[in-house]
Amino acid sequence: MESLTEERIEIRDDHKQPLLIRSRINNSSQLAIVGANICPIQSLDYELIENDLLKQDWRSRTKVEIYQYVVLKWTLALLIGLITGLVGFFNNLGVENIAGFKLLLTNNLMLKQKYHEAFAVYVGCNMILGVGAAALCAYIAPAAAGSGIPEVKAYLNGIDAHSILAPSTLFVKIFGSILGVAAGFIVGKEGPMVHTGACIANLLGQGGSRKYRLTWKWLRYFKNDRDRRDLITCGAAAGVAAAFRAPVGGVLFALEEAASWWRSALLWRTFFTTAVVAVVLRSLMQFCHQGGGRCGLFGEGGLIMFDVNSAKPAYTTPDLLAVIFLGVIGGLMGSFYNYLVDKVLRTYGAINERGPIFKILLVMIISFVTSCIRFGLPLLSKCVPCPGECPSSPTGGFSIHYDNFQCPPNHYNDLSSLFFTTNDDAIRSLFNDGSASANTGFQLSSLIIFFVAIYLLGIVTYGVAIPSGLFIPVILAGASYGRLIGTVMAPFTALDTGLFALLGAASFLGGTMRMTVSLCVILLELTNNLLMLPLVMLVLLISKTVADCFNKGVYDQIVALKGLPYMEAHAEPYMRNLVAGDVVSGPLFSFCGIEKVGNILHALKVTEHHGFPVVDEPPLTDAPELCGLVLRSHLWVLLKHKTLFTRERVMTGSTIVNKVKARDFAKPGLGRGIRVEDLDISQEEMEMYVDLHPITNTSPYTVVETMSLAKAALLFRELGLRHLLVVPKKPGRPPIVGILTRHDFMHDYILGLFPNLNPHK
Amino acid sequence: MESLTEERIEIRDDHKQPLLIRSRINNSSQLAIVGANICPIQSLDYELIENDLLKQDWRSRTKVEIYQYVVLKWTLALLIGLITGLVGFFNNLGVENIAGFKLLLTNNLMLKQKYHEAFAVYVGCNMILGVGAAALCAYIAPAAAGSGIPEVKAYLNGIDAHSILAPSTLFVKIFGSILGVAAGFIVGKEGPMVHTGACIANLLGQGGSRKYRLTWKWLRYFKNDRDRRDLITCGAAAGVAAAFRAPVGGVLFALEEAASWWRSALLWRTFFTTAVVAVVLRSLMQFCHQGGGRCGLFGEGGLIMFDVNSAKPAYTTPDLLAVIFLGVIGGLMGSFYNYLVDKVLRTYGAINERGPIFKILLVMIISFVTSCIRFGLPLLSKCVPCPGECPSSPTGGFSIHYDNFQCPPNHYNDLSSLFFTTNDDAIRSLFNDGSASANTGFQLSSLIIFFVAIYLLGIVTYGVAIPSGLFIPVILAGASYGRLIGTVMAPFTALDTGLFALLGAASFLGGTMRMTVSLCVILLELTNNLLMLPLVMLVLLISKTVADCFNKGVYDQIVALKGLPYMEAHAEPYMRNLVAGDVVSGPLFSFCGIEKVGNILHALKVTEHHGFPVVDEPPLTDAPELCGLVLRSHLWVLLKHKTLFTRERVMTGSTIVNKVKARDFAKPGLGRGIRVEDLDISQEEMEMYVDLHPITNTSPYTVVETMSLAKAALLFRELGLRHLLVVPKKPGRPPIVGILTRHDFMHDYILGLFPNLNPHK
Repeated sequence: MESLTEERIEIRDDHKQPLLIRSRINNSSQLAIVGANICPIQSLDYELIENDLLKQDWRSRTKVEIYQYVVLKWTLALLIGLITGLVGFFNNLGVENIAGFKLLLTNNLMLKQKYHEAFAVYVGCNMILGVGAAALCAYIAPAAAGSGIPEVKAYLNGIDAHSILAPSTLFVKIFGSILGVAAGFIVGKEGPMVHTGACIANLLGQGGSRKYRLTWKWLRYFKNDRDRRDLITCGAAAGVAAAFRAPVGGVLFALEEAASWWRSALLWRTFFTTAVVAVVLRSLMQFCHQGGGRCGLFGEGGLIMFDVNSAKPAYTTPDLLAVIFLGVIGGLMGSFYNYLVDKVLRTYGAINERGPIFKILLVMIISFVTSCIRFGLPLLSKCVPCPGECPSSPTGGFSIHYDNFQCPPNHYNDLSSLFFTTNDDAIRSLFNDGSASANTGFQLSSLIIFFVAIYLLGIVTYGVAIPSGLFIPVILAGASYGRLIGTVMAPFTALDTGLFALLGAASFLGGTMRMTVSLCVILLELTNNLLMLPLVMLVLLISKTVADCFNKGVYDQIVALKGLPYMEAHAEPYMRNLVAGDVVSGPLFSFCGIEKVGNILHALKVTEHHGFPVVDEPPLTDAPELCGLVLRSHLWVLLKHKTLFTRERVMTGSTIVNKVKARDFAKPGLGRGIRVEDLDISQEEMEMYVDLHPITNTSPYTVVETMSLAKAALLFRELGLRHLLVVPKKPGRPPIVGILTRHDFMHDYILGLFPNLNPHK
Repeated sequence: MESLTEERIEIRDDHKQPLLIRSRINNSSQLAIVGANICPIQSLDYELIENDLLKQDWRSRTKVEIYQYVVLKWTLALLIGLITGLVGFFNNLGVENIAGFKLLLTNNLMLKQKYHEAFAVYVGCNMILGVGAAALCAYIAPAAAGSGIPEVKAYLNGIDAHSILAPSTLFVKIFGSILGVAAGFIVGKEGPMVHTGACIANLLGQGGSRKYRLTWKWLRYFKNDRDRRDLITCGAAAGVAAAFRAPVGGVLFALEEAASWWRSALLWRTFFTTAVVAVVLRSLMQFCHQGGGRCGLFGEGGLIMFDVNSAKPAYTTPDLLAVIFLGVIGGLMGSFYNYLVDKVLRTYGAINERGPIFKILLVMIISFVTSCIRFGLPLLSKCVPCPGECPSSPTGGFSIHYDNFQCPPNHYNDLSSLFFTTNDDAIRSLFNDGSASANTGFQLSSLIIFFVAIYLLGIVTYGVAIPSGLFIPVILAGASYGRLIGTVMAPFTALDTGLFALLGAASFLGGTMRMTVSLCVILLELTNNLLMLPLVMLVLLISKTVADCFNKGVYDQIVALKGLPYMEAHAEPYMRNLVAGDVVSGPLFSFCGIEKVGNILHALKVTEHHGFPVVDEPPLTDAPELCGLVLRSHLWVLLKHKTLFTRERVMTGSTIVNKVKARDFAKPGLGRGIRVEDLDISQEEMEMYVDLHPITNTSPYTVVETMSLAKAALLFRELGLRHLLVVPKKPGRPPIVGILTRHDFMHDYILGLFPNLNPHK
């Protein structure tokens, strides 16, 4: 507050009086936690910037160039699909081989009755792998920690926190995820795959890089936020498609959860991308399976379709009741899951802030606990004689079902077949057909132990500094829960326990993620079984409804926790009682159409604003008139071209076109763009003038100050704006009241301004 | 042109000078052809009308009322699902029984060698049924003719042509569709089902009806376009779900093809509706199959899942090449299909305009031709000995495969098994597993004959005055085409001919409808087979890409043909070279904040506009100032409440709230609303004043006149506006330049204004 007032005075002294309507600063945080470290956030700008230069550039575009653009758009979609598919496969390959090797080693020791050595080896391997992943995260790219879906979601909502999609993040996400999953943590690779896909798309959409001399002319078309957003949406979809081998599910995920803006044109391109992913995965897997051992211990891992038996076409009332019951409880536990995850994240946040070492320590602790549980708990459960013939030692492909852990021959330990294997295989055995007598037989006790352990482990694991997806933990917990219910209810219902496991997973997913159609289709594609579709839909609807009574979806929670200013699709009710004028803070600075270089430079230095109103005043016009909006980034570029400066207040007009090209103003990619240090402006030049008209967006979206905040929010959100100009209702006043930005619509900010506002009315 | 100028003068004489910027009238048609008759079109208004009354009303809403609203929203979704499901089932039941009876009758005669009688009976039945359907359409509800999907699509885009969704339309759509399909036309029930679902939703969303004393307080919440739009979206989804028994496909269809605006909240509600449909259908079918014969000849008809064999998991290069070839040709023929349909529609349009009799005659001709082909062509193909034992006479369930038409015993006529049955069964036999030697054996000649016949019949049938879906004809033609290719390619590829039939259908659908994800999922749900998903995706993408090179999707074509002013999601390129000011035609009338009743009445009489700008002028304000926008419908209501009139120019202000309630201004349902006849205003009252402020939307969306038309179009489309106010750039001018409406963005209109504009640049 003071600071601002001081600044005002200081401004008034040596500069023109700013149009200051309110002396209030936006007190909502401009920082966010990405991964585990604080970083400044910007908004993305999806508005069509209509200034003379860009119009000129657009008009000058030839048919050929437009054609180039279309071709390139599809080529990039193709590339995203290809690369994401490759990464997805590579990821599975790595996990399966590392984890397989680890388990094989341990198992052999156990077969030799060397339990202590086995334990040591097992814990050791997990620890090393875990620390590896943690080190990558902690030292190279902290933004790579966690699921990544919230960050992608935020980006697609228009929030650009640097390093969310940086190449380093990509690198760490890929390898960290492999190590983390192989280390036996209760984490999935799905979230990281989505993030990976988005990073790949972002990298491809950079429009080359000056640094690496990659300045291909065609690529410049993508130097804007709109096209990048589309690419990254495709990337996110490709990620899901690669993680679950669910092309349609991927599209729907991008549509329902990730993207904030959608066009059916985009639907088609996303669809194309995921189709490419599907083809890539399929052919790579074929390659692996022809000629065995080509891919080491790779046994399809998460890429195989789990087959669930649902032979029973018709269900009776008791079946339905059982399913509804399952859904309700699932919803409750799902929302409780979110609640706990939130709590844990806050706790870990404090620890992680202390520095890399603490992050790694935390990971080590969790890793040790996980190993102990995975190795120790099976010892608790007693051995069961095999129904038929027990297969001898585990073979390649690594579903170590029928593990004769510490058991005598012809006995097996059902709990170890859940704990002492990869998550994917555990899910597979849970979904397994219960009626087929051969591979059935999870004792109730085992299921209870497993469920409790996984439910808690999953919660405490998320938030440590490794790339960790939430899908697999939730599916694991849900499946065991479902199988548990199924086993208990077996006398009353004729539905298969494997089917119950699937429904349990669905109920948990619905309860935590709160998606509907996409989850439905993903589960469909995972299990390749349409007959159970109505049941799955039913469970999803019930669990989501129940869970929504308590809290928001887990990703929304995390977005909020990280302080990312996410624009909801709907306006809060109380916004209808406020008008735009209530929350807008006047622009501290506005420029004349022809402004003094010194003033511009000063404004750029003392403020962080990214848009400045340009107001033409006498003598240029007879009355002060809003000329438009000029962007910070464009001003920097303009200031670099000193040839544009003039001694007198004159309109340089279109001569500028000969001196600067529109592409100079294009949004830079990962490169930092221009900063103060880059330009040295002499005192003499400070006194010169520059014509802002050519780079002024002459038709920014405006609202009248008496428009209700709800309506303004709708406009802001629907069009994906970054700046929304507020103009006065009555003529005769200064032509602009202020500029609404994303932060002005944030809950905390508004409640900060109006503490006695009832947010629920 | 003249008319307008005259009007202007006439206005100038006895009324205040209108703010006339341009003397140009909007020359784009304000009429559209719905079904087969011309009717005037209105736009829907999705803007939040923020006037004092409604704000007041909103503030006064209690928590309970908001809760009521939510409950009601979901209850309506439930009802839509239930009713649509019932109708869908009833539809199948009717078709199966009528058609079954017809075929049984004919068949028995033929078994008795009475070919002429059989032919007579067959033609007779078809004729009667066909005429019945045509009569319903021609005399009761012409809007019910055709698919209905284009109309629904247009409605969801914001075009309200009266009678599109009227109850009479609903009635005719249901029964006309049953008769039409049963009459053996090459038409589907899918389009009509979508329209039916939309009608049901619209009926439920009417918010009761004064006429029938259905004025339940709760229902008033839905007396606005936004909520109705959401309901109708659900209805459309439910229609697809009921037609194909494809709940997920239904949601995606609504999302991809039908809806123009989408929120993920809506996604969830649509999903709920289709889930209900699925459950309803399932339970009804269970009811039918327990205890046979309960539902007469009902044999699941279109509701059964076609099972396609795709045993072969891996495909080789030749397979892929074959599939790609199939896709390309399919795309070509698909777009050619659209081209022909367009031509045929234009021809029929001329005939249908002549009156009901001509419509019916046309139907009779088509019916006769169809019957002849269905009955006659099989005679051309020679009989084939049955591979195994020929089943004797057709049994219930009515897939008259193995038809020993005119054949000697132990022989069958493969062509009759395609022609001489219901469309659903024909599709089923085409999709049938070719490798299973038993029921294979379509001769190449038969397939060629069938394909050609169906392709042409489908085209000439669409456009006659009966409810006729396009899906089934396209699927039929596509499947036969695919099976044809499959049979030809059999030596080179190992893929099953049944699978080829499916891919052929996919390619045709992609080529005509131009949908991707939704078609993919619908086919998935129809065939319950995920393994072929990548192939289907591939074919869809190829055929759509190929077809898009030639023309637009068939539904878009029909929308354009009917002259419905559809707002595309993207702006045409040339719009970037125009500014809003170029196309906007100034408001002929604008009112003062406190206006003379006479002026208002006059304006309402002489214009058709639905929004009038309100400009406060001295003495109310010191300078003319844009107060906002007032709607025609609201003005009518206001004029009815004479107690609000005042002798002097005074602000009645909030006292109005005591005299009129917000709900009086709510948008009426099917009822006609108020008209001139309804109010008698004495000459004395004419001279009185009324305060418009309380019903003026004080924050309409505005754009500056220099904004490019492309940008304005984006705003208009994204927010679903009906009126977009254009304000002057420079102060001192009259505060409003004009109002942009849907028509101002129409291609024809703009090219009419700027004939020398190059639409491609």
